[in-house]
Amino acid sequence: MKKILIIGIGAGNPEYLTVQAINALNEVDVFFVMDKGVAKEKLVALRKDIIERYVKDDGYRIVEATSPERRRDVADYLTAVEDLNRDKQRVFERLISDELSDGECGAFLVWGDPSLYDSTIRILDAIVAGGKHEFDYEVIPGISSVQALAARHRVPLNHIGRSIEITNGRGIAEGFPSNVDSVVVMLDSQNAYRHLADEDLDIYWGAYVGTPDEILISGKLRDVMDDIERVRAEARRTHGWIMDTYLLRKRGGV
Amino acid sequence: MKKILIIGIGAGNPEYLTVQAINALNEVDVFFVMDKGVAKEKLVALRKDIIERYVKDDGYRIVEATSPERRRDVADYLTAVEDLNRDKQRVFERLISDELSDGECGAFLVWGDPSLYDSTIRILDAIVAGGKHEFDYEVIPGISSVQALAARHRVPLNHIGRSIEITNGRGIAEGFPSNVDSVVVMLDSQNAYRHLADEDLDIYWGAYVGTPDEILISGKLRDVMDDIERVRAEARRTHGWIMDTYLLRKRGGV
Repeated sequence: MKKILIIGIGAGNPEYLTVQAINALNEVDVFFVMDKGVAKEKLVALRKDIIERYVKDDGYRIVEATSPERRRDVADYLTAVEDLNRDKQRVFERLISDELSDGECGAFLVWGDPSLYDSTIRILDAIVAGGKHEFDYEVIPGISSVQALAARHRVPLNHIGRSIEITNGRGIAEGFPSNVDSVVVMLDSQNAYRHLADEDLDIYWGAYVGTPDEILISGKLRDVMDDIERVRAEARRTHGWIMDTYLLRKRGGV
Repeated sequence: MKKILIIGIGAGNPEYLTVQAINALNEVDVFFVMDKGVAKEKLVALRKDIIERYVKDDGYRIVEATSPERRRDVADYLTAVEDLNRDKQRVFERLISDELSDGECGAFLVWGDPSLYDSTIRILDAIVAGGKHEFDYEVIPGISSVQALAARHRVPLNHIGRSIEITNGRGIAEGFPSNVDSVVVMLDSQNAYRHLADEDLDIYWGAYVGTPDEILISGKLRDVMDDIERVRAEARRTHGWIMDTYLLRKRGGV
């Protein structure tokens, strides 16, 4: 039987690794390293740093694979991601079948937490459902960018007894939901918070949170949104990529 | 200057501790240990286990304080929690002023993640705003019960590109929100999921997740909700307390 570990490595700071994740890393025979796009080099380097830093024995292999990219010419986001995941599934199946022997343990290292806006669990599920490959798999949670953001801003995500929504740029562009006081936005490349300038909101924004390049800006949305947009554009130019997240909270709550 | 660390110790499994949290534990001169109610003994013991397991030097003190309890006879939940937090603030102020010397580092160990349904950050903020005590403080994120639940069920929290709501028993009792596919419910002592039996939902439920007492049940809500209610009541009787969380997801999504 083969074994696959989906290991959450946290969002940025190598010290976000948990003891459980470190123990898991030390069980691994083959690390599957896949990344894509402009952030590729940086993120692949971070994964290798983590492996070198925490794995005691050097009896492991690293197998790099080119990750398929989401097609930007497909109008429907869901279809595009489903296509992408099918392409990824093919790559994963090849890796599991060709690069991992019976009795060995393979691992995917997932940025942040594997349960939040990541498809690795979904793809392994689909492979298991397909019935052509037999393996056991386990998921190790990691510190998500949401938690890193809240910790660095020293701010609770929720008002007392109130709900939180976690969404993406597309979600928040539809407006601030009526049933929550707090919204965390991930994967917003369009500065969608600008649509909410007329609402009475505080924003807690962060880029590269937990890394030496970290930038944090917070304040009343209307007062700081121009700063955020400018700083964000500059940082993206400087680094060639950006990973940012923000929390919007209704003002006046506790 | 005094320093306070709010350290997220993860939800249950001592191996959920991050390297950052372990390094932080090793800086601490005084651990403030506060818990309440029926779970008190167990949770205080867990904190002490974590300190013994991860702190190398024994040059620290543990100061236990009785945590005020939320009054159950106050009808309004928000008012009751605000009263509670004011009582807690008085206890925290006494601890910081009497039990911590200048130049020392004190710590509160928070179950799960300090940014999610926990008031420690809020209370320290209020003390700082009060202006009577001078200290610096830092927040260390931890694996929340939400992430532990998803990892143990090996399930993504979100459908592709869709939003997630995190709420409590009161929130979900008002109905399944229209703008999300996934709802995570914490702090539900009333089996509020029963109200949603007519909706087409899957439930992923877990109690004592990440501990040796862990119980996991999942399936179509209508099919498993009686099991969950029964198992939950039994577990609560057996252990004298329960800490459980669940994810509700619309069926048919990806």
